[in-house]
Amino acid sequence: MKKLTVELKDRSYPIIIKDGALNEVKALLDEHLGTGRRHFVITNKTIAKIYKNFLDGFKNVVTIDDGEEFKNFKTFEFIIGELLKAKIERGDCIIAFGGGVVGDMAGFAAASVLRGVDYVQIPTTLLSQVDSSVGGKTGFNHPLGKNLIGAFKQPKLVIIDPKTLDTLDKRQIKTGLGEVLKYAFIEKTATDKDFRMFDYLKSLQKKATGNLYENLKSHWQEIIYMSVSMKAAVVSKDECEKGLRAILNFGHTFGHAVEKITDYKKYTHGEAVAAGMVMAFRAALKRKLIDDTYFREAVNLISSYELILDDMKNFDKEKMFEAMKSDKKVSHAKIKLVLPFKPLEVQLFDDTEELLIKDSLL
Amino acid sequence: MKKLTVELKDRSYPIIIKDGALNEVKALLDEHLGTGRRHFVITNKTIAKIYKNFLDGFKNVVTIDDGEEFKNFKTFEFIIGELLKAKIERGDCIIAFGGGVVGDMAGFAAASVLRGVDYVQIPTTLLSQVDSSVGGKTGFNHPLGKNLIGAFKQPKLVIIDPKTLDTLDKRQIKTGLGEVLKYAFIEKTATDKDFRMFDYLKSLQKKATGNLYENLKSHWQEIIYMSVSMKAAVVSKDECEKGLRAILNFGHTFGHAVEKITDYKKYTHGEAVAAGMVMAFRAALKRKLIDDTYFREAVNLISSYELILDDMKNFDKEKMFEAMKSDKKVSHAKIKLVLPFKPLEVQLFDDTEELLIKDSLL
Repeated sequence: MKKLTVELKDRSYPIIIKDGALNEVKALLDEHLGTGRRHFVITNKTIAKIYKNFLDGFKNVVTIDDGEEFKNFKTFEFIIGELLKAKIERGDCIIAFGGGVVGDMAGFAAASVLRGVDYVQIPTTLLSQVDSSVGGKTGFNHPLGKNLIGAFKQPKLVIIDPKTLDTLDKRQIKTGLGEVLKYAFIEKTATDKDFRMFDYLKSLQKKATGNLYENLKSHWQEIIYMSVSMKAAVVSKDECEKGLRAILNFGHTFGHAVEKITDYKKYTHGEAVAAGMVMAFRAALKRKLIDDTYFREAVNLISSYELILDDMKNFDKEKMFEAMKSDKKVSHAKIKLVLPFKPLEVQLFDDTEELLIKDSLL
Repeated sequence: MKKLTVELKDRSYPIIIKDGALNEVKALLDEHLGTGRRHFVITNKTIAKIYKNFLDGFKNVVTIDDGEEFKNFKTFEFIIGELLKAKIERGDCIIAFGGGVVGDMAGFAAASVLRGVDYVQIPTTLLSQVDSSVGGKTGFNHPLGKNLIGAFKQPKLVIIDPKTLDTLDKRQIKTGLGEVLKYAFIEKTATDKDFRMFDYLKSLQKKATGNLYENLKSHWQEIIYMSVSMKAAVVSKDECEKGLRAILNFGHTFGHAVEKITDYKKYTHGEAVAAGMVMAFRAALKRKLIDDTYFREAVNLISSYELILDDMKNFDKEKMFEAMKSDKKVSHAKIKLVLPFKPLEVQLFDDTEELLIKDSLL
């Protein structure tokens, strides 16, 4: 078991990472949130089938459809309606049980029903375990873009059971692996602690006899711990994305554009972010922010995790650039890019030339 | 001109009360929010007609329908869509220009679009000037109840121009007067300062030759200042309604029930709250929390402001009680009532017997 805390003064909260934690959820809730509170679980149909026994232990369960396309106004309205019909009160507690969509929707429902009730994250996918369940970003999509409606609402507790990853297929693991790799590349900017995540991921890849993804299974607790520690460190310093938190978007401005021009279907989020990181490394190299040695080491690591696909090339320069300009982190129509400038250090740059950006695309 | 501050550490903000302040809005925005920010005004169709010239000074104006029935999911979705279509960015600023519905909807839009942008309240009704524009309660209604979806989101600035009240009819003034009287009855619990608002309101009533409501016109700045000062004092001590802030609901648990069983149409909010306060005084008298002298003085003041109507009697006891139980401040199904226990002091009681509650109804 690993435990850490997101330090945010009166909004601080613990993250518990433990194989088999799912069997101890009730005890953990009582320990960390106090006894006698009603729990309202929000989950999706797929999860509800896999974890029927677990969910049978809860009286109030709201089940939404499974998929990013349901992360919208309609589902939000549905969740709120179900909570209100079940007469949720301000002292009750919402539990987000599922992947990122469930966590983001449940978190925003918790932020806004009765103007705010407590909530707990129990993420069941790699992406939500290493990224969205920590840091309080909640919300949903709008036809005009992703995550355009939401709130910063920190959970009271995050319970991560890496054993839940055993039910995921390779594509679902890939979805989260992009973020895992990202943490390795921002380590020295994110934290003073010395995780040496880059070396760790490299060694895992090298040691893998046969199937890398099979090999990862026995390392999830450690991988998640390192990832979440870095996210927690960054969020503690910049809760509402006014500065430092931007580094968590390393690879994402390019990556989001890749997702957008391929209708969010062709590649997993992890593959898109991986491609985005390669593009960011290319931009950094062209800008002479990093040397060729680090560039090759970095791109090799990303490639070795099987996240760069053969058809990731010749992206339409104009479409990509347009998509990048519509990203919500754009300020005064300037594209800001998180770029590496030293090994394992990144920084936000707002002065990358349009031509250089286009030349950095795969 | 009167100026005060809602003290909330890094979320503190000034409230400016000034006859004619509307003519200085641009300068006030620049002074308090900095120059060079884009402003997105949210208003309603009625206000848009009255203040056409003022609104012509803004490039981005979102106009919603006028009325409580539009304080819903659909309007929220509309506002968000308009803001996104106009490419609102995180550094931009929303301006709520109108009454409580506009303020609550615009505030929640500001809380949730792009996970939060700054906003300014410019309330144009008495109710919003003395109540909803200050304190950061934002949100909208659900078919199951009022204000069930929302957020605590403090504005960056509140600009109150009492001259805007000149366009209101008597019914619209009445809507806000219930809150004004409320402040008089909670003064000593709300603040250490000595406004003597009860005496002030009593003297205004007595001095009124002919029409009380005409007479009030020359006293709005003072009345609003006293009201808002008390609200600001309470909000500073309890931003998210965990304790003290409940006193602002004096008269409201009964009052909301009156509104609910009359479909929110028969009486103005001020009349319902006034009736609610009379019921609260009756409950306090029955519980021997206050003596008969204060009871009569209090009820006389409320009556003298023409807020208790002849048909406010024989409310259906069961319906009222049911409505009170469904109020969102109920905790563990217990009805909590803010009751006076000394002149100008109130407190939350959760131990009022059902029978006594029913006997206190008008």
